[in-house]
Amino acid sequence: MKKVVAGVDIGGTNTVYGLVDTTGKVLAEGHLKTTDYPEIKGFVKALGAGVKKLLAGKKDLELTGIGIGAPDANYHRGTIEHAPNLAWKGIVPLGELVKKELKVPVAVTNDANAAAMGEMVFGGAKNMKDFIVLTLGTGLGSGIVVDGKLVYGHTGFAGEVGHLTVVPGGRECGCGRKGCLEAYASASGLVKTASLMISEMRDNSPLRDLPPSKLTSKAIAEAAAKGDPVALKAMQYTAEMIGLGIINSIVYTSPEAIFLFGGLAQAGDLIFKPVKEYLKKHNYILFRNTVKILPSGIPESNGAVMGAAALILNELK
Amino acid sequence: MKKVVAGVDIGGTNTVYGLVDTTGKVLAEGHLKTTDYPEIKGFVKALGAGVKKLLAGKKDLELTGIGIGAPDANYHRGTIEHAPNLAWKGIVPLGELVKKELKVPVAVTNDANAAAMGEMVFGGAKNMKDFIVLTLGTGLGSGIVVDGKLVYGHTGFAGEVGHLTVVPGGRECGCGRKGCLEAYASASGLVKTASLMISEMRDNSPLRDLPPSKLTSKAIAEAAAKGDPVALKAMQYTAEMIGLGIINSIVYTSPEAIFLFGGLAQAGDLIFKPVKEYLKKHNYILFRNTVKILPSGIPESNGAVMGAAALILNELK
Repeated sequence: MKKVVAGVDIGGTNTVYGLVDTTGKVLAEGHLKTTDYPEIKGFVKALGAGVKKLLAGKKDLELTGIGIGAPDANYHRGTIEHAPNLAWKGIVPLGELVKKELKVPVAVTNDANAAAMGEMVFGGAKNMKDFIVLTLGTGLGSGIVVDGKLVYGHTGFAGEVGHLTVVPGGRECGCGRKGCLEAYASASGLVKTASLMISEMRDNSPLRDLPPSKLTSKAIAEAAAKGDPVALKAMQYTAEMIGLGIINSIVYTSPEAIFLFGGLAQAGDLIFKPVKEYLKKHNYILFRNTVKILPSGIPESNGAVMGAAALILNELK
Repeated sequence: MKKVVAGVDIGGTNTVYGLVDTTGKVLAEGHLKTTDYPEIKGFVKALGAGVKKLLAGKKDLELTGIGIGAPDANYHRGTIEHAPNLAWKGIVPLGELVKKELKVPVAVTNDANAAAMGEMVFGGAKNMKDFIVLTLGTGLGSGIVVDGKLVYGHTGFAGEVGHLTVVPGGRECGCGRKGCLEAYASASGLVKTASLMISEMRDNSPLRDLPPSKLTSKAIAEAAAKGDPVALKAMQYTAEMIGLGIINSIVYTSPEAIFLFGGLAQAGDLIFKPVKEYLKKHNYILFRNTVKILPSGIPESNGAVMGAAALILNELK
């Protein structure tokens, strides 16, 4: 019998799950439309059926546990709590329900923490004890590892670097406050910055031909790659704000590396180069040249499933 | 035989040391003038002689270890590194030298980390696993405890919350950068803020009779306690900047409590009340009402010696 775990990534729209072996190989994958299930019980039934289907006919595989990454998930309690992007309101005892359905140990955390576990167990942080993963998607998520352990904190919600206040009184954030890092250092932040550059700069730019509602981070990154000065300046500013988030993170936990994961990190040198330059100039002197800025060592395509799998593998170890 | 440790607090001007029992009681204390020893070897000899003198004639006491709090100290290496406020330049192998001198285990860290250990072992954090101590002196130091362990990070220098950039492009900091929390949320920050209020406000104030070089945080706190509107506004702003540092710290490690230690914290309600109000308004929603803001449970008078003692007691445990 070969031991495998299931990794589950619950998103606002889609849920992806897969069987993952102890080396991180994804053996089989399935998905659900999260929005098809207005009730959590229906979702858990469907997820259970989906995982069982992946196992069906594979008698050499033994399911030993399930790791779940989900928005607003609480590791200590195994819950999803007041998630604005999900139909399941209030406090949802997800871990308990899935454990009842599939009769194996279950661990739950948010997607950025799962990404950090993936990095530690399967990715670039295998030999590191102190590192941080920043997930640069629509928002900015983070997973912080200190002395080989993910930081959950007193509440179970630790690691919300996206909600660091970096510009007091600055841009409105989805959380209702102003000046959060996420409003600058994320795909949606990049779009806001590009809008600003379009209004402030005089250069020609293909971005001027897009209605603001159609302006995407992808379009900006593509324009930047072709040398558009407006897009380039927007990328530069976004990278500097990522850099600001990074130098602020370093003073807390003095990590060996910061991994950048997610859509924006795919822009490669357009992000990494100015981030590294920012650090060279602005990092606190005690920490100069002590931190590597690295791309994630986990493939973007099934990174979320691998991260969730790593979460439970680490528990079972 | 009663087991005791020595706690040593090395400051730029003075060094205080004491024998401390396992309950945190300081049994005897001595001091040295740090500036009398331009060479580290002379200092270590004098410190060794001082500790031996405290032990002399007390045959019932057994010295089991020495904890040292010092500026720019590195826990991993037991060193003081490039401390701008000390005569000993470069990398000073303090732990090794003291161990050779006194033949007992030695642990070294910076003073704020020692304060956090004191809080955990003897103070208000005895039953806490996740908390942060902010030391509000001339500068702002911090010790971060995650899951019952002090965070040292990859370098051994973690926990430099005073050098969080809170106002990009803001006030000059002693570290050579701009906008560090310490330039606002500390005794020296309070003095700078009071100067600003003197220039911006029209109210009468006793602070207008002091030459700027004589304006101290103590004078400001005293004027505020008597209702001076300029001093009150300076205290309010300083407290809000402490609050900003706190809400930013919470997103990293989600602590159960933040302890305020040191001179500024002695101002009591003038600091604590506006800090708590700031948190009520500005703390990230996931962490609302999850964090206590507390005065340190360690007496100001020999807190540094107790903290250093706690550091080594925790190692010997």
